[in-house]
Amino acid sequence: MRVVLEPCQVGGFRFAGVAAGIKTNAALDLGLICADTTATAAGVFTRNLVRAAPVVLSARRIAARSARAVLVNSGNANACTGQPGADAALATTGAVAQQLDVGADDVLCASTGVIGKPLPTDVIASATPGLVDDLSDDGAARFAEAIRTTDRFAKVASVEVESGGQRARFMGIGKGAGMIHPDLGPLTPHATMLVFLVTDAVVDSAQLQHRLVSACDVTFNACTVDGDTSTNDTVLALASGSSGWTPDPKLVQDAFTAIGRELALMMVADGEGAEHAVEIAVSGLASDADARQVARTVALSPLVKTALFGRDANWGRLLAAAGRAGPLFDPQRATIRVGGITIAERGAFVSAEAEASAAKVMQDERYRIDLELGDGPGSFSYFTSDLGHGYIDVNAGYRS
Amino acid sequence: MRVVLEPCQVGGFRFAGVAAGIKTNAALDLGLICADTTATAAGVFTRNLVRAAPVVLSARRIAARSARAVLVNSGNANACTGQPGADAALATTGAVAQQLDVGADDVLCASTGVIGKPLPTDVIASATPGLVDDLSDDGAARFAEAIRTTDRFAKVASVEVESGGQRARFMGIGKGAGMIHPDLGPLTPHATMLVFLVTDAVVDSAQLQHRLVSACDVTFNACTVDGDTSTNDTVLALASGSSGWTPDPKLVQDAFTAIGRELALMMVADGEGAEHAVEIAVSGLASDADARQVARTVALSPLVKTALFGRDANWGRLLAAAGRAGPLFDPQRATIRVGGITIAERGAFVSAEAEASAAKVMQDERYRIDLELGDGPGSFSYFTSDLGHGYIDVNAGYRS
Repeated sequence: MRVVLEPCQVGGFRFAGVAAGIKTNAALDLGLICADTTATAAGVFTRNLVRAAPVVLSARRIAARSARAVLVNSGNANACTGQPGADAALATTGAVAQQLDVGADDVLCASTGVIGKPLPTDVIASATPGLVDDLSDDGAARFAEAIRTTDRFAKVASVEVESGGQRARFMGIGKGAGMIHPDLGPLTPHATMLVFLVTDAVVDSAQLQHRLVSACDVTFNACTVDGDTSTNDTVLALASGSSGWTPDPKLVQDAFTAIGRELALMMVADGEGAEHAVEIAVSGLASDADARQVARTVALSPLVKTALFGRDANWGRLLAAAGRAGPLFDPQRATIRVGGITIAERGAFVSAEAEASAAKVMQDERYRIDLELGDGPGSFSYFTSDLGHGYIDVNAGYRS
Repeated sequence: MRVVLEPCQVGGFRFAGVAAGIKTNAALDLGLICADTTATAAGVFTRNLVRAAPVVLSARRIAARSARAVLVNSGNANACTGQPGADAALATTGAVAQQLDVGADDVLCASTGVIGKPLPTDVIASATPGLVDDLSDDGAARFAEAIRTTDRFAKVASVEVESGGQRARFMGIGKGAGMIHPDLGPLTPHATMLVFLVTDAVVDSAQLQHRLVSACDVTFNACTVDGDTSTNDTVLALASGSSGWTPDPKLVQDAFTAIGRELALMMVADGEGAEHAVEIAVSGLASDADARQVARTVALSPLVKTALFGRDANWGRLLAAAGRAGPLFDPQRATIRVGGITIAERGAFVSAEAEASAAKVMQDERYRIDLELGDGPGSFSYFTSDLGHGYIDVNAGYRS
């Protein structure tokens, strides 16, 4: 399945992005996805107890398993904003519904940006006519631009699926750089990460939800920048059915997974201040769940992440983080490789030469670290970024 | 109970610290505590699966519940060093035992420093005669100096306990700045943190172990710098009984707790690169265990810790971290105070003025953040540091 990191046209959908003035720098900050007719819809949301107003509203509306539009703003998370925040989510989606002449409950929404500031309802309502005017078949790039916050680049991935002469397109548009450690129910993910998946395949809503959940579990729920789960994490999937083809549900899941994996990797690579995107691949444990727990602990360890920043093949820190994760293994049997170079074997030092070679690999933007911890069948990969001065710069002064 | 942050003489114990040459900079790096006669002994050790050789050896020897000496080196953790590491722990404690003319099993040990490098047994063995010569009643300051690694200052706390005309002294000597998140069995702590508690009180070994464990639970097990549990964390307690007084065990626990609290606070304040030591006090939850879990999650959050560094009263990040901790609460009822100033009430923004006042408090070296999350009886305090450029500098280049 060939993933292209560019937007494409997906039948039945139009996209828009405008500068409404929510951000103060005249950047695009308001986006809209519109389905020409009612699309089947699925969604997963942050499991943080503190849920932003748009999450609460969209989680309620997605119960209908269909939607006509998704309104997304950056620059303001509309989180921890109390009743005025809930009112603002209602009012802004209401304005869009009116303009599109669809039912209010058919408009989903998502927000990302600063927590705890009132959402400027008037600003968004006044921008709505222009936003709807901006809708076009090839507006996905503008939409992707409009949902960025601290992202250094927009994140889009597309796939075309074909079988027996029939074909369907899938496109994912995401944003996320900090507060990345999605915990999307009913799964366990992490970030303000927003992802919107659209397809022209025919997918019934039960399959759409099921396949979305499974794809998230090994993509967005397996990446971390800082271990902080956002109040706004949202992944929505809409299927227009305009291709007329109902692919095997497994194909839908594969497409979602392939797109999700690329978007997750982009988020990690774009981790606030990050210079490296690293796959932590753990194997040899009793179960995949055990391997996931160890990979997650290593991926989150500040000492590991600062070593990645310092390009230090510090296998002691890697092994120490694995050792405190919980699942049992025998450290004396651990092998650790960086980019294929073995730096620890049977739990001990290999050679200074091996470490020096590994340190060279660690200059790459993307590489992989293997922790082989035994003979068990369990394995799992987690994606993480390094922790350096850039992260501090971005987050110590984010609100100022 | 008045805690003095200085060494004192404790009957029945002598201390030493010399420059053996384990560190390359001629600093003190080898310390010894010696009991004149057999002392009762208790210990708790890291629960990391990866246990340094000195931890394995001391955990085995402490089973006898008595000891004559504790040998401690800095500059090398003797962790992930395989059989040669185990041999080195045996050989170095053996050299001390011979020099002191005590049984080999009566010498405990601890190491701290770089992971994965062979411990220079010869260097330590040659330094042993000089180390024993250096033993003196008032050598605690030199011992404290010898066990430092990245610590910016030595850490000592003393208490004199009195009751009915009888008195006993307690002294704690600690080290720890990075890898601080002790998980000391049978408890749940985190760091390379080493702490040595000595007293001239008469305390039987069962009480000594019990009181040590209880004191650790609310002190060392409730502080974090980076969430990384070391392979070497060790807390040892020795009671010489030379005062002839058997205090109420509760008094022993209070003394250990008072000393432990000060040492834990010093470690956090000395957190690698840290500028602030902050108490995260959570209350109003169903149980203390729930409160502990929330306080721990907030204390570990990189987004919270970078906000502390940035002196940003970012209540949204505080509430978001609490919300992902697990225990249930109603975010709409949350109140958050920084240094007593209310910055969020009923889960929402109070005023820009309040935030500005709180930001002033956040310039202090020590302050407290309260998260009042409901009406429940559960409360717990965790100590954490800010995460700034200093931490990156220390840890990205630690081995170079």
